[in-house]
Amino acid sequence: MGGSYEVIDEPAVNDSSFRPSSLAVCLVSGGMDSCVTAAIAREENAEVAFLHVSYGQRTEARERRAFGELADHFAVTKRLAVSIESLKAIGGSSLTDACIPVTKADLTSPEIPTSYVSFRNAHMLAIATSWAETIGAQRIYIGAVAEDSSGYPDCRPEFYEAFQRAIDAGTKPETNVKIVTPVIHLSKSEIVRRGLELGAPLELTWSCYAAEDQACGQCDSCALRRRAFAAAGTPDPIRYA
Amino acid sequence: MGGSYEVIDEPAVNDSSFRPSSLAVCLVSGGMDSCVTAAIAREENAEVAFLHVSYGQRTEARERRAFGELADHFAVTKRLAVSIESLKAIGGSSLTDACIPVTKADLTSPEIPTSYVSFRNAHMLAIATSWAETIGAQRIYIGAVAEDSSGYPDCRPEFYEAFQRAIDAGTKPETNVKIVTPVIHLSKSEIVRRGLELGAPLELTWSCYAAEDQACGQCDSCALRRRAFAAAGTPDPIRYA
Repeated sequence: MGGSYEVIDEPAVNDSSFRPSSLAVCLVSGGMDSCVTAAIAREENAEVAFLHVSYGQRTEARERRAFGELADHFAVTKRLAVSIESLKAIGGSSLTDACIPVTKADLTSPEIPTSYVSFRNAHMLAIATSWAETIGAQRIYIGAVAEDSSGYPDCRPEFYEAFQRAIDAGTKPETNVKIVTPVIHLSKSEIVRRGLELGAPLELTWSCYAAEDQACGQCDSCALRRRAFAAAGTPDPIRYA
Repeated sequence: MGGSYEVIDEPAVNDSSFRPSSLAVCLVSGGMDSCVTAAIAREENAEVAFLHVSYGQRTEARERRAFGELADHFAVTKRLAVSIESLKAIGGSSLTDACIPVTKADLTSPEIPTSYVSFRNAHMLAIATSWAETIGAQRIYIGAVAEDSSGYPDCRPEFYEAFQRAIDAGTKPETNVKIVTPVIHLSKSEIVRRGLELGAPLELTWSCYAAEDQACGQCDSCALRRRAFAAAGTPDPIRYA
């Protein structure tokens, strides 16, 4: 149980943050944000273990492929890919329920979109925490983005601060696992730029919510990605339908 | 997001706590604590939805049977039984890893026993929260016991308080889900007595960690149960090997 429950969210990759003996778990969905987060985790830790969690979303197989290719790129040996049966069984989201269509993006709407999967990131963090405690990792990296995202409540800094307290209270006294959210305060275009600076393999990532062969270009996730590359002034290396 | 983040843990079943229009999710493992918790939830709510979560534990099938029999007893129509693949994949506990033996109970030891499944109750609460938010339930009942338990960190009140904040921060603004831990401050023998008062079907419950045909009588869970019935001065309705 850690004495402090602050979430480490400094986005700077600098020498002082590197921990030569540290092992970190990094949640890698296969998207752009997690790719850049993984590149940052790789800079800041001696070893990074990659965790992929699918949850019955439409593009599960394509994201899993991106995870494998990213893990190969970063030469990661500790890998765990698991599925959350319950989120599929619960449904209620356009990502996990085939009866709810994936809507076209409306980035100006204050509404939480139909792609919201209830409390999804809590499941991700619970799995990451159990794995981190069991393998002795000290940090969990997650590529949540607060601003310029789709407005999901489980992407906000307050959620990670609260979950950190739950980790501190709910794990063994000798366990000290900290959540790190290195891109949470960045805009999507800043994430693209950071990725380019770090040489992150953005061409291997998959963002589309709707399709697995070619990105649709029209869902929330595609719309945010295209806007980010446009704002960063660099071409998106993936192709769109 | 609720304004308050206190965990409701008043154990008293009284008229004022009954909410005639409320729907509650109750986590039902099939053990004694969850059976009594379910009986309390039934008294306090118009409708109770039963949630069973297995996680690759040795006695999974037997607990699932107890869940079904308890749901039948309480005439519950909303039921969800899911499995957590990740905890089995992660291992590290005598409950989920066949290579780690289930040790005989030592109820005097301050050590966390080998049956500890890392951060297990966070997974349970994440699933319960996603389901509650999706079906519109306002409460989640969980039969955690702080004292007189096996010393698991995720059974302590601080953990539930912290997780409540994570729910408040990580769900939709209009969602208001409260964790209720009605037996958390009771001793195991008080739980037996409360169960008897409420007419809870303790004969349908399963507690043993090691066996599925007849309870072993020697694991932590059997030892706690037997001590509880002895202290309550009433015979345990199940048979032991």
